[in-house]
Amino acid sequence: MEFKSKIKTIEWIDNYSKMVDQTVIPYEYKFINITSGDEMFNAIRNMIVRGAPAIGIAGAHGIILYAQELAGKSLDRESFINELIKKAEYMKTSRPTAVNLMWAVDKQIEVIKNSKSDIAGIIKELKINGIKLENEDIEINKKIGDYGAEVVPKGAAILTHCNAGALATVGYGTALGVIRSAYAKDNTIQVFADETRPRQQGARITTFELAMDGIPVTLITDGMCSYFMKKGMIDMVVVGADRIAANGDTANKIGTYTVAIAAKYHNIPFYIAAPLSTIDISIKTGDEIPIEERSHDEVTHINGKPVCPLSGVNIINPGFDVTPHELIAGIITEKGILRPEYNKSIAEIFKQ
Amino acid sequence: MEFKSKIKTIEWIDNYSKMVDQTVIPYEYKFINITSGDEMFNAIRNMIVRGAPAIGIAGAHGIILYAQELAGKSLDRESFINELIKKAEYMKTSRPTAVNLMWAVDKQIEVIKNSKSDIAGIIKELKINGIKLENEDIEINKKIGDYGAEVVPKGAAILTHCNAGALATVGYGTALGVIRSAYAKDNTIQVFADETRPRQQGARITTFELAMDGIPVTLITDGMCSYFMKKGMIDMVVVGADRIAANGDTANKIGTYTVAIAAKYHNIPFYIAAPLSTIDISIKTGDEIPIEERSHDEVTHINGKPVCPLSGVNIINPGFDVTPHELIAGIITEKGILRPEYNKSIAEIFKQ
Repeated sequence: MEFKSKIKTIEWIDNYSKMVDQTVIPYEYKFINITSGDEMFNAIRNMIVRGAPAIGIAGAHGIILYAQELAGKSLDRESFINELIKKAEYMKTSRPTAVNLMWAVDKQIEVIKNSKSDIAGIIKELKINGIKLENEDIEINKKIGDYGAEVVPKGAAILTHCNAGALATVGYGTALGVIRSAYAKDNTIQVFADETRPRQQGARITTFELAMDGIPVTLITDGMCSYFMKKGMIDMVVVGADRIAANGDTANKIGTYTVAIAAKYHNIPFYIAAPLSTIDISIKTGDEIPIEERSHDEVTHINGKPVCPLSGVNIINPGFDVTPHELIAGIITEKGILRPEYNKSIAEIFKQ
Repeated sequence: MEFKSKIKTIEWIDNYSKMVDQTVIPYEYKFINITSGDEMFNAIRNMIVRGAPAIGIAGAHGIILYAQELAGKSLDRESFINELIKKAEYMKTSRPTAVNLMWAVDKQIEVIKNSKSDIAGIIKELKINGIKLENEDIEINKKIGDYGAEVVPKGAAILTHCNAGALATVGYGTALGVIRSAYAKDNTIQVFADETRPRQQGARITTFELAMDGIPVTLITDGMCSYFMKKGMIDMVVVGADRIAANGDTANKIGTYTVAIAAKYHNIPFYIAAPLSTIDISIKTGDEIPIEERSHDEVTHINGKPVCPLSGVNIINPGFDVTPHELIAGIITEKGILRPEYNKSIAEIFKQ
């Protein structure tokens, strides 16, 4: 199947990374070029590029950019490799929660360590690998979409939180990939998009992306989900993930856990859609997933204007929460849908 | 006990109603004078005055304003009364969900029907009754506060949604009245305030009010509540109410039901704080409570700027939701805390 928004969210071009600036959607839809490693670090941290799979690719591109810079410093091959690996480790710290970033950077570190080439050759290999990861991401998402579409009931209304769409990946999307594949088979389905405060990725990005593809979407505020669930207006929930523990506990955008509890209360199935690179089998439970604390401005300001008194009020702004595995009906991956017991199904899929 | 913000949110002055303009808080804290019945209708509808108890008083004042206008029309006494009762019935339609509005307007209708006076005398009696309702509201809220404070654990962190404070009442508040009374006894308690999209009464008004009284408050976005509950950082929830059915089902600001489900999941007690005038014993369950649908702009715009694409996106904006009685640990009223079975405890309190 085809989807209309076929432009890559992030793409390697010759010697720089080109990406959609996600901070200005839906007011503007523009691309920017990232030409240095530190610029990429900041683009990830400031969410110019966002979404776990997309920041994985961004991290991989960042390593190529750092490599290009170090190549100009007349280092010997060994020093070049040592310096580059230090930069790669630094790149991983740009955002702590999504594990795809660490996964993709580690893929580049493997290329560096396994290379038999000179410095120019290493850079060439990093570029080839970066582009390979890009293309694989789209292929993986289409597989996730096709597996996921099988569990979408005819005419379903699907609630999603945050944006796990084409704009959170290189293309097609994970949760929105499921929706795209389902819509291709049955154009009577529709989507409810949570606004997703504080950064409003649902209001700004998910609605934008779905409207562009002509998929019916209703925007609601985050507190409304239970109201519509009780009315029987929501048939399933599908969201993305930033990191999944070996037992299935899943970190995703703040507010996801609240939606999962509401879905359970109304007996509505709650699915995660994510590539296997999101699963971190090195950690047993969600308690071990580091939760990023983000700037207070995200809560106190919208579009640059304050929404609360700016003194006398405390703010805490966790970027993610962890949905415990017992609230998850299935984890939709490129190798099929994992079901409880996740300890077993996850271990099984990693043995293959 | 005393609270610092002793100014009345809404107050009858000679021949007009003076109220805090709640649409501009916290950017401005200003009073406006409402001098005609239709102005009052619009002030209620547009939420210049908001909060179930406050709009009750506003409705009562509105009847005095209509009476003053009709008195200038040289009607005979009977026509005056008939016209005024029509205006009173119209005033009730300014907002459909909160029953305090209907209750307070009905109190004025009783005055009109029972009066033995001439037109000038009826107006005088309506003013006396309007001011009596104002003062009773504060007294009732202090009683609610004192009963509620008894169930607040030492050093508790209390989550509230929307604003059920001094600014939602004539003064002191219902849910925030409980918090004020608890804080007077134990200044180690603290508050978590949900932002409460779409109108952000939590971010704008609750934080403003609590900061003014020096009560520690942390602002969170609506989706975050479960995150903090799971961390053990929230000990109880207290919210206001717009209408309570005979079985305890409670309509309150949209998003309340989601918080109640999250509280249940974490075994955190969820309380309603409301005057008995909020209980509508004429309806058996929450299914019968009319839910106001409000303007789409409230979802699509914040501070006048769009937060989503303005085409290709559907909006539904219910102003309230209904929390089923089984999620409610207690209803804190001016006559004590009602406990399940609410069918029985509510019937009992109305017999007294």
